Amino acid sequence: MDTPRLVEKLLRGDRRALARAITLVENGSPELREIMAGLAPHTGRARVVGFTGPPGVGKSTTTNAAVRAARARGLSVAVLAVDPSSPFTGGALLGDRVRMQEHATDPGVFIRSMANRGHLGGLSWAAPHALRVLDAAGFDVVLVETVGVGQAEVEIAGRADTTVVLCAPGMGDSVQAAKAGVLEVADVFAVNKADRDGAKATLRELRQMIAMKDRSDEEWKPPVVMMVAVRDEGVDELWDRLDAHFAHLESTGGLAERRRLRAREEVQAIVLDLLRSRIGVGDDGALESAAREVAEGTRDPYAAADLVLKELGA
Amino acid sequence: MDTPRLVEKLLRGDRRALARAITLVENGSPELREIMAGLAPHTGRARVVGFTGPPGVGKSTTTNAAVRAARARGLSVAVLAVDPSSPFTGGALLGDRVRMQEHATDPGVFIRSMANRGHLGGLSWAAPHALRVLDAAGFDVVLVETVGVGQAEVEIAGRADTTVVLCAPGMGDSVQAAKAGVLEVADVFAVNKADRDGAKATLRELRQMIAMKDRSDEEWKPPVVMMVAVRDEGVDELWDRLDAHFAHLESTGGLAERRRLRAREEVQAIVLDLLRSRIGVGDDGALESAAREVAEGTRDPYAAADLVLKELGA
Repeated sequence: MDTPRLVEKLLRGDRRALARAITLVENGSPELREIMAGLAPHTGRARVVGFTGPPGVGKSTTTNAAVRAARARGLSVAVLAVDPSSPFTGGALLGDRVRMQEHATDPGVFIRSMANRGHLGGLSWAAPHALRVLDAAGFDVVLVETVGVGQAEVEIAGRADTTVVLCAPGMGDSVQAAKAGVLEVADVFAVNKADRDGAKATLRELRQMIAMKDRSDEEWKPPVVMMVAVRDEGVDELWDRLDAHFAHLESTGGLAERRRLRAREEVQAIVLDLLRSRIGVGDDGALESAAREVAEGTRDPYAAADLVLKELGA
Repeated sequence: MDTPRLVEKLLRGDRRALARAITLVENGSPELREIMAGLAPHTGRARVVGFTGPPGVGKSTTTNAAVRAARARGLSVAVLAVDPSSPFTGGALLGDRVRMQEHATDPGVFIRSMANRGHLGGLSWAAPHALRVLDAAGFDVVLVETVGVGQAEVEIAGRADTTVVLCAPGMGDSVQAAKAGVLEVADVFAVNKADRDGAKATLRELRQMIAMKDRSDEEWKPPVVMMVAVRDEGVDELWDRLDAHFAHLESTGGLAERRRLRAREEVQAIVLDLLRSRIGVGDDGALESAAREVAEGTRDPYAAADLVLKELGA
């Protein structure tokens, strides 16, 4: 399939074209430049909702329930499950997707896992690109579920229009941990498995944590939704909260701001990737000789970096 | 403590200076430039051994046993435990370090955990910088233990002079998984918990996997060591294999090559970080206006990246 034809099919929401385009994103294919140029005028319509939380909290189950809720409202939904690409456990995590097969025959649902590369490979434009593809394909809602527990995965979910942070009772200090790194990205908290012992304590802790932050009256205060996702309990309330947050973003100008920030990170990631590929091209480049000197202890790594930057002209 | 004094103390192996310098590395402090310049002439002496493997395989126990083996040979040892910085589980993983307290009063041993930031934060020079500090402080051996299971952690361990990949029997498809992403980085395989059922099967699988790769006679063929690290069984053999690999690297010129590659990645990471901090400085920068256009769909992200590169002069 040539690229103009792929773009045309993507814009019609063709499933095979979608699967192919996301594979091209995963592989960092050179066709991406042309694809993204073709899709750009058709983006910015989908609502993007991110789900993140510690392992065992029920992220897949909750995403699955959210898909049902969206379908009940007549919305088409794409799910992008971003898995950390681990040489040790990658395969096992992907197996989880099997649970999503309930929606396999529904033409209004598209589900896709995508590997998230390590920071040294640095494809940090990959998730934004995949969102761009799903957006241009015309889905009303795109759910981004991050399987990993790392900072990178939290940041991917945190770039959504609305970010849901999942907790569960009896998961030790999950609230405590959330306090450390996740409070900034959470627009909505959901306590899953809320039929278990300790659910009220978890709710109380989250509310205390939310109350601790100073906010103006106009600022959004993250609500806490109690859920049992596996029985669809609380999912309607979750959806109502997502709607309320989206309406808040639209009325305050926050939506345009978030999307500008998301685009900013995407562009910055592309710029850094293009620069990375230019640094040290050819064995005679400044990087090669500088690296040799650094290894031999005759130049320090910052002085070496200055040399490379000078050669780049930057 | 001012920077020249910190460098002077580091070169004498002062413990407080070491702890402080690694904290400066974690925080990406501006003093690093001057510190690295001061340390550069004193680097390149330590042997760096990396340990990686799936969770539950006994990485801490094995590292600990390797520390005892090194001490028995009269070598001073630093351990750098690189933890993935997870907003959800970060704290729990660090608790593991407590096991290392056996060596707390030994002046020939220094143990330090360091958080590994997510790829979006991008401090990929952090682990190489920390190695540089420990090397300049005069340790004979630096053991790098990566706690995470992600590609990033494997790559950090894989940058050592010698990389040990740990497996254990009865861990399902750990060998299978190792095949996918770890074979390239393994110089030595260690089967820990070799007193358990299935140890022979694990050994056989590993040997088959190693045999599958074409190698010239001069090329290093990774040996497999059977261990029960918790009882120090197999640790002497492990150390012999590490020595053999190091001797091989020295005799073939592979050591200089590996260290050149390590320095190359470190310099490249600094260059990219310096460029990242220059891109989009100020609200009127090309990045800000380009991001707005991308968010509005009037420019595609690659065309936007070209604009930003043009403004950078690169």
